[in-house]
Amino acid sequence: MTSTLAETNSSELAGTVNRTLVATKEGGVRIEERDYSGLVLRSGPGYNPARAGETVTHGVVIKPVTTCICGSDQHLLGAVPDGTAMGHELTGIVVEAGDAVQFTKVGELVSVAMNTSCGLCDFCKIQQTNHCVNTRHYLTTGLGAQADYVLVPWADWNVLKFPDAEKAMDLILDLSLLSDILPTGYHGAVVAGVTTGCTVYVAGAGPVGLAAAASARYLGASEVIIGDMNEDRLALARRHGFGGINVTAGPLPDQLIELIGAPHVDATIDAVGSVVHGGSPEPRSAAVLNSLISATAPGGRIGIPGYYANTLPGGSAGAHQTGQFGLAFGAAWARGVSLNPSVVPVAKYQPPLMRAILSGRLKIADIVNAQVIGLEDAVDAYADFGAGAATKYVLDPHGLTRK
Amino acid sequence: MTSTLAETNSSELAGTVNRTLVATKEGGVRIEERDYSGLVLRSGPGYNPARAGETVTHGVVIKPVTTCICGSDQHLLGAVPDGTAMGHELTGIVVEAGDAVQFTKVGELVSVAMNTSCGLCDFCKIQQTNHCVNTRHYLTTGLGAQADYVLVPWADWNVLKFPDAEKAMDLILDLSLLSDILPTGYHGAVVAGVTTGCTVYVAGAGPVGLAAAASARYLGASEVIIGDMNEDRLALARRHGFGGINVTAGPLPDQLIELIGAPHVDATIDAVGSVVHGGSPEPRSAAVLNSLISATAPGGRIGIPGYYANTLPGGSAGAHQTGQFGLAFGAAWARGVSLNPSVVPVAKYQPPLMRAILSGRLKIADIVNAQVIGLEDAVDAYADFGAGAATKYVLDPHGLTRK
Amino acid sequence: MTSTLAETNSSELAGTVNRTLVATKEGGVRIEERDYSGLVLRSGPGYNPARAGETVTHGVVIKPVTTCICGSDQHLLGAVPDGTAMGHELTGIVVEAGDAVQFTKVGELVSVAMNTSCGLCDFCKIQQTNHCVNTRHYLTTGLGAQADYVLVPWADWNVLKFPDAEKAMDLILDLSLLSDILPTGYHGAVVAGVTTGCTVYVAGAGPVGLAAAASARYLGASEVIIGDMNEDRLALARRHGFGGINVTAGPLPDQLIELIGAPHVDATIDAVGSVVHGGSPEPRSAAVLNSLISATAPGGRIGIPGYYANTLPGGSAGAHQTGQFGLAFGAAWARGVSLNPSVVPVAKYQPPLMRAILSGRLKIADIVNAQVIGLEDAVDAYADFGAGAATKYVLDPHGLTRK
Amino acid sequence: MTSTLAETNSSELAGTVNRTLVATKEGGVRIEERDYSGLVLRSGPGYNPARAGETVTHGVVIKPVTTCICGSDQHLLGAVPDGTAMGHELTGIVVEAGDAVQFTKVGELVSVAMNTSCGLCDFCKIQQTNHCVNTRHYLTTGLGAQADYVLVPWADWNVLKFPDAEKAMDLILDLSLLSDILPTGYHGAVVAGVTTGCTVYVAGAGPVGLAAAASARYLGASEVIIGDMNEDRLALARRHGFGGINVTAGPLPDQLIELIGAPHVDATIDAVGSVVHGGSPEPRSAAVLNSLISATAPGGRIGIPGYYANTLPGGSAGAHQTGQFGLAFGAAWARGVSLNPSVVPVAKYQPPLMRAILSGRLKIADIVNAQVIGLEDAVDAYADFGAGAATKYVLDPHGLTRK
Repeated sequence: MTSTLAETNSSELAGTVNRTLVATKEGGVRIEERDYSGLVLRSGPGYNPARAGETVTHGVVIKPVTTCICGSDQHLLGAVPDGTAMGHELTGIVVEAGDAVQFTKVGELVSVAMNTSCGLCDFCKIQQTNHCVNTRHYLTTGLGAQADYVLVPWADWNVLKFPDAEKAMDLILDLSLLSDILPTGYHGAVVAGVTTGCTVYVAGAGPVGLAAAASARYLGASEVIIGDMNEDRLALARRHGFGGINVTAGPLPDQLIELIGAPHVDATIDAVGSVVHGGSPEPRSAAVLNSLISATAPGGRIGIPGYYANTLPGGSAGAHQTGQFGLAFGAAWARGVSLNPSVVPVAKYQPPLMRAILSGRLKIADIVNAQVIGLEDAVDAYADFGAGAATKYVLDPHGLTRK
Repeated sequence: MTSTLAETNSSELAGTVNRTLVATKEGGVRIEERDYSGLVLRSGPGYNPARAGETVTHGVVIKPVTTCICGSDQHLLGAVPDGTAMGHELTGIVVEAGDAVQFTKVGELVSVAMNTSCGLCDFCKIQQTNHCVNTRHYLTTGLGAQADYVLVPWADWNVLKFPDAEKAMDLILDLSLLSDILPTGYHGAVVAGVTTGCTVYVAGAGPVGLAAAASARYLGASEVIIGDMNEDRLALARRHGFGGINVTAGPLPDQLIELIGAPHVDATIDAVGSVVHGGSPEPRSAAVLNSLISATAPGGRIGIPGYYANTLPGGSAGAHQTGQFGLAFGAAWARGVSLNPSVVPVAKYQPPLMRAILSGRLKIADIVNAQVIGLEDAVDAYADFGAGAATKYVLDPHGLTRK
Repeated sequence: MTSTLAETNSSELAGTVNRTLVATKEGGVRIEERDYSGLVLRSGPGYNPARAGETVTHGVVIKPVTTCICGSDQHLLGAVPDGTAMGHELTGIVVEAGDAVQFTKVGELVSVAMNTSCGLCDFCKIQQTNHCVNTRHYLTTGLGAQADYVLVPWADWNVLKFPDAEKAMDLILDLSLLSDILPTGYHGAVVAGVTTGCTVYVAGAGPVGLAAAASARYLGASEVIIGDMNEDRLALARRHGFGGINVTAGPLPDQLIELIGAPHVDATIDAVGSVVHGGSPEPRSAAVLNSLISATAPGGRIGIPGYYANTLPGGSAGAHQTGQFGLAFGAAWARGVSLNPSVVPVAKYQPPLMRAILSGRLKIADIVNAQVIGLEDAVDAYADFGAGAATKYVLDPHGLTRK
Repeated sequence: MTSTLAETNSSELAGTVNRTLVATKEGGVRIEERDYSGLVLRSGPGYNPARAGETVTHGVVIKPVTTCICGSDQHLLGAVPDGTAMGHELTGIVVEAGDAVQFTKVGELVSVAMNTSCGLCDFCKIQQTNHCVNTRHYLTTGLGAQADYVLVPWADWNVLKFPDAEKAMDLILDLSLLSDILPTGYHGAVVAGVTTGCTVYVAGAGPVGLAAAASARYLGASEVIIGDMNEDRLALARRHGFGGINVTAGPLPDQLIELIGAPHVDATIDAVGSVVHGGSPEPRSAAVLNSLISATAPGGRIGIPGYYANTLPGGSAGAHQTGQFGLAFGAAWARGVSLNPSVVPVAKYQPPLMRAILSGRLKIADIVNAQVIGLEDAVDAYADFGAGAATKYVLDPHGLTRK
């Protein structure tokens, strides 16, 4: 594998076609063939027009080994303009590096934090890269990572180098999940206060829910239970040793009593989330949050990493976010249950989670049922995933994982 | 003062009248003359009938030096049965101690934590006395502290002895606020994440709001601003060096820009709270919370010590608490702002706050404008306080503060 | 099993012989046959003479299911008077309860925290039971737990009830280690800052070292390595998946490079400890600490739960503790490595660790090679353990574990 | 003041003389007149020869408004080669910025963190800039800040911009202390666990000790006591409301009893430090640490920000640091007192401390008795400070503070 990387250099890339998965105006995706643009920022949907044409000297170009489809990609479809490049989960090889890049070298195999940040603003300095004030400096929607080549700004700050590329390729499916969903699930568990010996309930058995459950177990939870309505996803959860609750079968506290002998758990995580449409949130979102309020023990915390806003990724709340959720806040107060919503600061969690994967402690690819497909299969995979497939789709544009 | 205490002993108390402030069925208060009952649990409204007549061997009887009127007393009026003994803020002299009491002695001057707890359940052991499972073991509503004599169970756990009684009497108004509102305000600041160098906004300029503001300053906040609609209370706040915002004058972010040059602060505290009536919360409560969501910086926290439930103090949420608040949760998620509601665990904060008062660092009585009155003046004081007086009323049933 | 418990009651215990393991003046142990004394404090070595004859109304009498031999028992031999009752690790059945005991019932199966504490002093209230000011109130050396019956004061505070006695008996060897060594090892890992994804080195492969290593893994360490000079103990460590280093084979940093590719780990734990003899510590103790300073990464912490003082258990440092250790403190400062020595506050860690055992996540009895023997076998077991046996000896005075 | 800045630009600087304070081989200092070298790294003592002549594109040139003399400057004298540029405390105006600098502009008034770091290594990413692996990349000893112009690498990461330059100039003496000693003292208090309501003892009444004491008070300490042998420094401490102990007057616990009624305090800070000479530390250093072990309450922490190693600033411990300190470690273990030595990560603490100064909460210049002198007065000031003057010397090379 390493030899493949070493051979790559930017001089041979000029003129290369860069297949790029983009949103359609109908809410789907298609592949566009674009010219390779290297370190120069493109113009068009998703790119900051004020920066178009700029050479990003602190950036690198990544040739993806893998780039995944995420639930939040689907939230964007229909909301972003036709032609917006999709994708933000990226693991790959550095093929070009700008002049101001100091520590990242061509040929290195790296993971990229999905919420690309500047490393220099007040928020980045305290590891809250999720609140970086420059996050939309170049790209307004993710990274455009579902492509043959991807520009990543502030590269020294945003990439995580794997210490041993060969060993990393053996665990590449697991490591691919470091770019977003494993840190997202882990963040949910951390802000929910999950610690040794505690009981945990996760709402949602999709990839983020399973990552939250796996993280909770890794953090020492004595019991981890996942709830969903999709029996395929629940079956996957149970296969990996988590308790599974079909939320349509009765009130959550009652079902918890049957499983663990208590109507509540020490910590809960919302891995469902919601989108606000036209100022009105889906009523089901409030129902999920209220069920978590009722199922969290006094003094416990609800971790809410799931997607709740109707803005684009990384955006701050705009004035149009007046959508209100009817929450049982009196009950939350009486129980002393806190609500902790936020996007994950990916970079903060990547180093420990990488080491957990490399030491064999977190077999996350198995748990989320990661499946490798080609870039050309992505159009169908978006549809399948949207329909509830119990699968995490991992795109491999260059066939690098299939040795 | 100490000599007064030393002279007291329980043998002379048998047959004594115990004036007790109780709720009326009209939602007001009146004074009842009751027989002194010592360590024996009474029967009647507010007392656990299963325990009536029991001698509480781990309890003490306190002769109040002071006992205050609290906003949450007023929440109870109309909700509790006629004849329920009122009050939970208590500072006084031990006049009787049960056989199982080990470390608390007759004659000692002590502060009593308002949320009396057992010291032995899983929650008490981790200092979450606010979630004590035995808190209603003897009394279902507070302590009945607005009286001449008060029974306090689990005395060794629930009382804080002042190291030097004479010095304590010099600062007795400040120390009286250790029983509830100073810890409540401090708790709000702590769970809001207030720390050195941060900017803080407190909603509500009543005694709890002022205590929260004073606590935020003590915790190192560089700017502390209070909002209210009551100009008298705002004037009191400004007199003590806090910024004051009349919330009717415009959107909170706009007013913050004028005061501190930014539309949000690092931490916010809700010292307003709300009661749910017949399943419907007051609409204004959601408005306060939503204004705090809009005024908290990304990654910040909202501390919510104010009263939000329609249960009695210390109670867990009942099934009838279906009242829902329309919260701008999408905005909270996008900003990464957490909501941290809970009753204060008073005992956890008492020792450091006592030392802060004794060393002269927290002049809290001045800040909340504490005023001493007799037990007989309490009926009027309840009315004044309910009408928005910029005053904290401190009852002195035995005239012990007026040397 | 439960029926056995239920049958027990104190009336049948009067006149019973209470076999008690005591220290000899030669530095060994012997069994004495004593009269059952129930809740009345005995007189003699190890008992507070000021309290002799007192009925401990807040205490219970425990009939041990198990009581273990600990390394710190051996530190006491030779230092305590002839006839001092030995032992502080205790798991058993409540057979008698004093009048002031509220929540602990005869017949319950419980674990007892080795550092018995009052639950009411300033230290206990903040979960620092290891600094309880009343810990020597009744007994000056441990609990005298290696006996047929054991008095435990402040029972409601000091015992941990297992939620399901029958299930607990299935895991009784694991649960027996909750009384001391599992919390001790866990405390070492916690104060060393062990967390997810970090690398850990433990000095000492005795029971506490293995418990520290198991705790570090449970806390999420990606690599855990143990060092010792005893190859039997190292073999046991390796059998359970830990790295093993024979410290006589070369400098620690060099050996670490071979195992993990770096000369230091993120966190280190000293499970060796030392005793000061006549004012002079063993030189080897400083050598262990200095090797940890050299092997801890910059910014890391050394957790030091091992026994370092020449006082009796629970005692504060006396004036005679002038023994000084030659530490490479300049190196510690330059590396920013902190030294965190302390006795474990057992009660703080028992609930989560109990749940970890009951859910099958911590198979600690296997890891430390726990072996059940009779009380009568204890004399030989002390000698074996002192000679370095790779075994944790668990005494079962009444044959209750052998169903 | 601002206009002065605006007028400055690098074109007029070429050919300017850059007066630079350098070490002499006799252990003193002298002023050298050097050519202005802008963003190009010089060669000579203190500069990395492998980088000599490199244009530091991510760097800026600062024209100092102030640059202070620090105790650690004096530790270097005699240890560094003749001609080494001195100084690391720097506050000033950006007069030149490299091509890769993104957010720092010419004309801005900034504070520079004394331990210049890269912002991109594993340590910097977790705010442990004191362990930056690239800290010696360009300069091996501090910054050479005591000069007319100073090169600062990784400028976007290392400088803190004051929000309002004019207001900042009003408080410039206080803000000058943000570069090192205020964060150093604050760090000592933080790692000592100082919090609201606790009692604190600081060993050493020099500028760092006073900064630690002021920080402890700001963090909410109820009592702060400083010990020293220098009566002038103690007088300064007492003038600012701290307790003062002359350590030659008797054992520390005895003196504490007199002042606060207890033989120990909750937290202690070592602001004395030590240098190892020829492998042997000064005996007095161990004495200071041992006095702190005896004076820290059970469960407390000793914060040790003072200089303990014989390496150059920012260096990791070398093999020659075998100097050992005879510490009463048995007593530390029995008391559960931790030792927390480390260099301060300045950048971590600068933002909150800046806001504390700007809001008027920390009048640190007064407390340490800051005195402004010219660069030409520095030679004498080094001598005075070394002799124990109760003064913090602030150099103003361009006369910018004297409006």
